[in-house]
Amino acid sequence: MDFTIRAATLEDCKDISRMIMELAEYEKLSDRVKVTQRDLEQDGFSKNPFFHGIIAEVPEKHKSKEGHTKVGYSLYFYTYSSWKGRAVYMEDLYVMPEFRGKGIGKALMSKVAQLGLAAGCNQLDFTVLDWNKPSLDFYLSQGCLDITANIGYHCMRCEGDALERLAQGDT
Amino acid sequence: MDFTIRAATLEDCKDISRMIMELAEYEKLSDRVKVTQRDLEQDGFSKNPFFHGIIAEVPEKHKSKEGHTKVGYSLYFYTYSSWKGRAVYMEDLYVMPEFRGKGIGKALMSKVAQLGLAAGCNQLDFTVLDWNKPSLDFYLSQGCLDITANIGYHCMRCEGDALERLAQGDT
Repeated sequence: MDFTIRAATLEDCKDISRMIMELAEYEKLSDRVKVTQRDLEQDGFSKNPFFHGIIAEVPEKHKSKEGHTKVGYSLYFYTYSSWKGRAVYMEDLYVMPEFRGKGIGKALMSKVAQLGLAAGCNQLDFTVLDWNKPSLDFYLSQGCLDITANIGYHCMRCEGDALERLAQGDT
Repeated sequence: MDFTIRAATLEDCKDISRMIMELAEYEKLSDRVKVTQRDLEQDGFSKNPFFHGIIAEVPEKHKSKEGHTKVGYSLYFYTYSSWKGRAVYMEDLYVMPEFRGKGIGKALMSKVAQLGLAAGCNQLDFTVLDWNKPSLDFYLSQGCLDITANIGYHCMRCEGDALERLAQGDT
């Protein structure tokens, strides 16, 4: 199947928002999604954007059952490792279920790697849920390392009231 | 003990580089550090920096055995969660061993939280090594969540030849 990978624009935020929700449903965590189409427009497409995006698109003749031609996306941003230097972080990689197995996910990830290398990055980082065996197997088949399993890194988060208290210094 | 927390400048890169190495030695992974003082100067203090830094400094009279007054640092940058929106990532948090237990680490982390909230961030993310019990206990005492243990997130990485192959699309 033909598909193209291109940089996301402001006009893609509606579809990105739809697919973020589809991905969260797949991950069984959709009640945690607070980001709206408007947030994406503001945070990704203003001066000093917080993220960048790429979109996978199929021709009109291959559109999805619901009529979508934008069938996959990845959000990424540049980060920094104090050991390795410039890095790129892939926040999401998603392809709609009926378009899987056609190389679209791999093409999206390959594009993020290309963009990262072009920006001087030495590593591509991301996270995966440990029960998501198909994704984990795919990433391992691409030569990626599970540095939680191999080195013992744990992802930590501070949010909500705990973040406010931390900022106020009164914990 | 008096100490101040302030934004890092180009002139701090020598001390940041020294402390990055000290932290890596503590983490038993110092052979992995490739970042030089020059890299830090270029990547953190040019247009569109890849990271920001803050420094903990003590008065001259409290300097370390080796004569250092810059005794702790944190590197951070802004990221994005497709569920929660704007986020801040704390890449490193370090205080020299002889200055621990005086609230310097907490003050550094509190500053990163303040800066994140001021920028509209909803969460502060970071990683910790699972054997580093003192750090893990400190973070948990501050209300942080271990989302690897609680939700199952694994940190994944692609680097070196695997990253090149991924970018070329020939894996």
